[in-house]
Amino acid sequence: MAHRHYLLLLLAVLLPAAARGDPEAVQDFCVPDAGRGRPVELGLLPSYPCRNPANLTAGDFVFSGVRAAGNFSPETGFAGVSVTPAQFPGLHTLGMSFARADLSAAGGVNPPHYHPRATETALVLAGRVYAGFVDSGGRLFAKVLEHGEVMVFPRAMVHFQLNVGDTPATVYGTFNSENPGIVRIPATVFGSGIREAVLERAFGLTAAELRRLEKRFGPPKKAEMED
Amino acid sequence: MAHRHYLLLLLAVLLPAAARGDPEAVQDFCVPDAGRGRPVELGLLPSYPCRNPANLTAGDFVFSGVRAAGNFSPETGFAGVSVTPAQFPGLHTLGMSFARADLSAAGGVNPPHYHPRATETALVLAGRVYAGFVDSGGRLFAKVLEHGEVMVFPRAMVHFQLNVGDTPATVYGTFNSENPGIVRIPATVFGSGIREAVLERAFGLTAAELRRLEKRFGPPKKAEMED
Amino acid sequence: MAHRHYLLLLLAVLLPAAARGDPEAVQDFCVPDAGRGRPVELGLLPSYPCRNPANLTAGDFVFSGVRAAGNFSPETGFAGVSVTPAQFPGLHTLGMSFARADLSAAGGVNPPHYHPRATETALVLAGRVYAGFVDSGGRLFAKVLEHGEVMVFPRAMVHFQLNVGDTPATVYGTFNSENPGIVRIPATVFGSGIREAVLERAFGLTAAELRRLEKRFGPPKKAEMED
Amino acid sequence: MAHRHYLLLLLAVLLPAAARGDPEAVQDFCVPDAGRGRPVELGLLPSYPCRNPANLTAGDFVFSGVRAAGNFSPETGFAGVSVTPAQFPGLHTLGMSFARADLSAAGGVNPPHYHPRATETALVLAGRVYAGFVDSGGRLFAKVLEHGEVMVFPRAMVHFQLNVGDTPATVYGTFNSENPGIVRIPATVFGSGIREAVLERAFGLTAAELRRLEKRFGPPKKAEMED
Amino acid sequence: MAHRHYLLLLLAVLLPAAARGDPEAVQDFCVPDAGRGRPVELGLLPSYPCRNPANLTAGDFVFSGVRAAGNFSPETGFAGVSVTPAQFPGLHTLGMSFARADLSAAGGVNPPHYHPRATETALVLAGRVYAGFVDSGGRLFAKVLEHGEVMVFPRAMVHFQLNVGDTPATVYGTFNSENPGIVRIPATVFGSGIREAVLERAFGLTAAELRRLEKRFGPPKKAEMED
Amino acid sequence: MAHRHYLLLLLAVLLPAAARGDPEAVQDFCVPDAGRGRPVELGLLPSYPCRNPANLTAGDFVFSGVRAAGNFSPETGFAGVSVTPAQFPGLHTLGMSFARADLSAAGGVNPPHYHPRATETALVLAGRVYAGFVDSGGRLFAKVLEHGEVMVFPRAMVHFQLNVGDTPATVYGTFNSENPGIVRIPATVFGSGIREAVLERAFGLTAAELRRLEKRFGPPKKAEMED
Repeated sequence: MAHRHYLLLLLAVLLPAAARGDPEAVQDFCVPDAGRGRPVELGLLPSYPCRNPANLTAGDFVFSGVRAAGNFSPETGFAGVSVTPAQFPGLHTLGMSFARADLSAAGGVNPPHYHPRATETALVLAGRVYAGFVDSGGRLFAKVLEHGEVMVFPRAMVHFQLNVGDTPATVYGTFNSENPGIVRIPATVFGSGIREAVLERAFGLTAAELRRLEKRFGPPKKAEMED
Repeated sequence: MAHRHYLLLLLAVLLPAAARGDPEAVQDFCVPDAGRGRPVELGLLPSYPCRNPANLTAGDFVFSGVRAAGNFSPETGFAGVSVTPAQFPGLHTLGMSFARADLSAAGGVNPPHYHPRATETALVLAGRVYAGFVDSGGRLFAKVLEHGEVMVFPRAMVHFQLNVGDTPATVYGTFNSENPGIVRIPATVFGSGIREAVLERAFGLTAAELRRLEKRFGPPKKAEMED
Repeated sequence: MAHRHYLLLLLAVLLPAAARGDPEAVQDFCVPDAGRGRPVELGLLPSYPCRNPANLTAGDFVFSGVRAAGNFSPETGFAGVSVTPAQFPGLHTLGMSFARADLSAAGGVNPPHYHPRATETALVLAGRVYAGFVDSGGRLFAKVLEHGEVMVFPRAMVHFQLNVGDTPATVYGTFNSENPGIVRIPATVFGSGIREAVLERAFGLTAAELRRLEKRFGPPKKAEMED
Repeated sequence: MAHRHYLLLLLAVLLPAAARGDPEAVQDFCVPDAGRGRPVELGLLPSYPCRNPANLTAGDFVFSGVRAAGNFSPETGFAGVSVTPAQFPGLHTLGMSFARADLSAAGGVNPPHYHPRATETALVLAGRVYAGFVDSGGRLFAKVLEHGEVMVFPRAMVHFQLNVGDTPATVYGTFNSENPGIVRIPATVFGSGIREAVLERAFGLTAAELRRLEKRFGPPKKAEMED
Repeated sequence: MAHRHYLLLLLAVLLPAAARGDPEAVQDFCVPDAGRGRPVELGLLPSYPCRNPANLTAGDFVFSGVRAAGNFSPETGFAGVSVTPAQFPGLHTLGMSFARADLSAAGGVNPPHYHPRATETALVLAGRVYAGFVDSGGRLFAKVLEHGEVMVFPRAMVHFQLNVGDTPATVYGTFNSENPGIVRIPATVFGSGIREAVLERAFGLTAAELRRLEKRFGPPKKAEMED
Repeated sequence: MAHRHYLLLLLAVLLPAAARGDPEAVQDFCVPDAGRGRPVELGLLPSYPCRNPANLTAGDFVFSGVRAAGNFSPETGFAGVSVTPAQFPGLHTLGMSFARADLSAAGGVNPPHYHPRATETALVLAGRVYAGFVDSGGRLFAKVLEHGEVMVFPRAMVHFQLNVGDTPATVYGTFNSENPGIVRIPATVFGSGIREAVLERAFGLTAAELRRLEKRFGPPKKAEMED
């Protein structure tokens, strides 16, 4: 009886551990060849031929472009440099990519966003950063990170960062996909041209408020509304 | 020369087709055994033992619970029934799940949300529905669907539905994951307790507006803020 | 001792739950471009270029072709409409496809078959259907389904459907692969040209019986027999 | 114009090559511990603890049981030895298994069957064997194999073997799954208890013929018919 | 208390079994078309078009080239024949390949190597072979194998073989990847041109010893050193 | 004719790009519960229960232990800190892990090794480092990296690092597996107890040289030699 109770208890606590295998390519690497003088485009990646391995050098597997910050947005105080095969072709088929994020001293913010295809591990290289994510149950996990600390943002979960220090902050993030993708919540929801009837009822915002948001995040890209 | 031009053109249009393989379990099926009288919990799924196949019957692979609508939310006019192994244990390890969504006649809305782990195909069983998704480039793909039409929402992309007809609408959605997950944008962003400094700068909302949204979508679940 | 016994018992019932991960593409979507006026062929799918996302509209992600039944076979009373990227290119790389099956009132039958690359969830939209599958241990799981019920057929398991009602029946099936494939048992075994010596000994059928079956399901497609 | 023609031609022949990645475990190996004196059961595999690597020896990764043939079936002249983790626990989590098939001299037959979860490569160790498979398009690929030849049977495709020589034949098959599964067509279709109405209409067999087949391949295992 | 102890004990022994799924292509098979008279190159595999299934014959799925040994190396007494899609195009997209290894009677050796992308199962067809692998914890699992025995070498683990009998030995190995790859330790470490400063300190070898090894295994292939 | 030539040329350069999908868990995350006061062991990872998400805090997803270097080995001048779920349980099921490597100023060396289950991206945080890898074709890709540069080491390829500057160097590496594993070439080959007959013939080393190496890297761990 105690045993039966124990069995149930054991089963109750027992292991939702999702054993999983990491992926693998069918060759060592494949540095894409976009054609003379043409940049590699993410949308065409799977279609590029591989460069002949005999013509590759170590430089094809080294990237120098995250030594400095990108351009700061005056609105958010955020500067981001994403490094995928578009910038660093050697990453193709290797299942990883990375990014540098800088946040201005005066409360720079990396707005709520998510990466549909990757987990991110973020290392604070400088500054103090309030960072967090929200899981699919709506729970917030947020904390102030100091220099040298690493936070992990699980795949496809909404996350954000805020500079809470007096100096600029720098974060180095890496991803377990060569093309993690990024969905920025504000522009996706308020700047893509979704009918106001949807947003009014979903968010409880007034038409005037919605219009202000749409002005800030729009206009929609050559929108496909109504087909 | 024309040939060279042609080659570049060809390469330019050529096939970003991401060839992919669908997954597979290492056994035919595994109906989880949660213990006498206990419900199956999604969070414990990988830890349940399989029931002995000799004791299973056809009923373990049949589900009757989407014949009627769920409970309508007065705020949105939406009623949803999600069917994962928690409701239909036979789905476990089979890589699929499904859902029924009903939208009230008076402009019922399924608010913007995404499924982090699945593509959805949605069949309109009744009514007229304005439905759409936004891709990770911020482009909207939205359209009014009639009875019998199917729309596909790619994995982890934000999507929504609005009843634009005079009668209640019903949508049957299926997913290519047994546990697709759901991230509801309004509650995730405005109801989880993210510091207002983040949301003010990210969305350009006033403190008063934010507080109204937080009231509508909060309070946060036993929040982990600040740790 | 009781403990030892208990441990064995626990291990005996414990969890053959095959934790598995659903797959994922490296981009949001890829609508294949077969070239002006040419149909998309499944056999060429991985080789088509993606259409430029900027030129896509919502219509590329909506399909209207399952609103009516397909053509009925007089022999079986079955009418099927399979929807893969060949009919609905927007499904490509999204890991899902679907089908509509109609069964005539007079005992229409969807003959035993299996999908080598997908699990199927089947929703009965109309009628009463005796449906079932056989697992790899030879056990049958079969049951009469009513309108609104869903049955799941695990990946690569033989399954079938029979209209047991007085009215035509309609089933809507979805798959967790863009190209699930279909192996129809009768034609595969008796209509492909396998040497009779194999079939006689394997099935215990007479030469005359075999010839009748071969006539019904053959002749073999430009067969590769004997090479 | 020639160019346009050429483009179409090129696209027509172009590469349905499904680039795929082979899987990977998250540890070197995991030899299951079924408990003192208990056999490893396939259905419980994912639930067994791993044995402590420190207690393993080379013998845990070596199998000696395919040096001799299994027991011959008088009906088919077939003797099979399947080696999965149930017989060779060291295979667990390594993604491979193997089998030995012997066919008696007098036209021994390995009846039509398929492995739902694995491709098979089959090496003829002795004898002459007519072997083949049928693809999902119903095309037969069959040929007489000599000693030392290897044939590949793609995942989940129906295949078979027939001894066409004057001596016993031996085939060594390997699989790219630790638990490939086996669906034997005759017993699955005619011995599992599927309602005769299905089989009569699907195969065009008479009730008498069906009953003979059911007698040969049945009775069904504690059948789940009708639930 | 006993219970608490028991729980810990149970958890301690409990199941590091990494449940994993084997992969799957999105079509039955894809025999690559390298163009008239051109050999299939592994590096170009994903880019070849598939041959039209209607033009394939059984011969495309049969390979005869492992009936005899390859060429022996006088230094090691080893002769290897690797069979990937480069030699047997029909293997493409099927997730398997194989190899034949012969070891000369006078202590022939298959030097330490590993396959980065596959587990190997090795069947001894003739002779007596001392074979083994080293796991990532540095533990050796080695044993003398007799004719008819099978050893499994887990994915990416260093392994080797030595003929310890008086007659030539033959081993038939199969892999769960169409392109397992091979990294030969001696040539990789001592013959690729790595700076001596690295090797001296890593191995504790003298400059003279290193030079001898480099002479034996080099010179490096058009090396990319120093870029 | 030109066209034919062109087609061949096109096919020759065309796209060995291995399109691959990154993996995914069936839940947001799973922080393992090893039991009160017990450390998480990698070998038991898949067997731990998940901690109840309601009891997790942001601290479970933050790691502070790479702010300082590990202990330096006097022999190699190397200090490494590996961070897997054993040190940072929150990483479990998320498909990522990371490491900090410090190299002493006087030519500190990270000896040749490989990670069987992950690609690594390595960021130089301080110092000048000669780093490189060797592909499975035996080609070396090596280069001196400066502060802020990133090098990618493809999955399962042998790689190494050497401090070539006058100051200590620090490298931050991240992996696309929660348990990448590490195979250190010197100890694996010379310190595991492989029979000298294998190593002598494979490397061309004298018995005396081998014994010196075995002394440096041995003795073998409770070896399994000869079984």
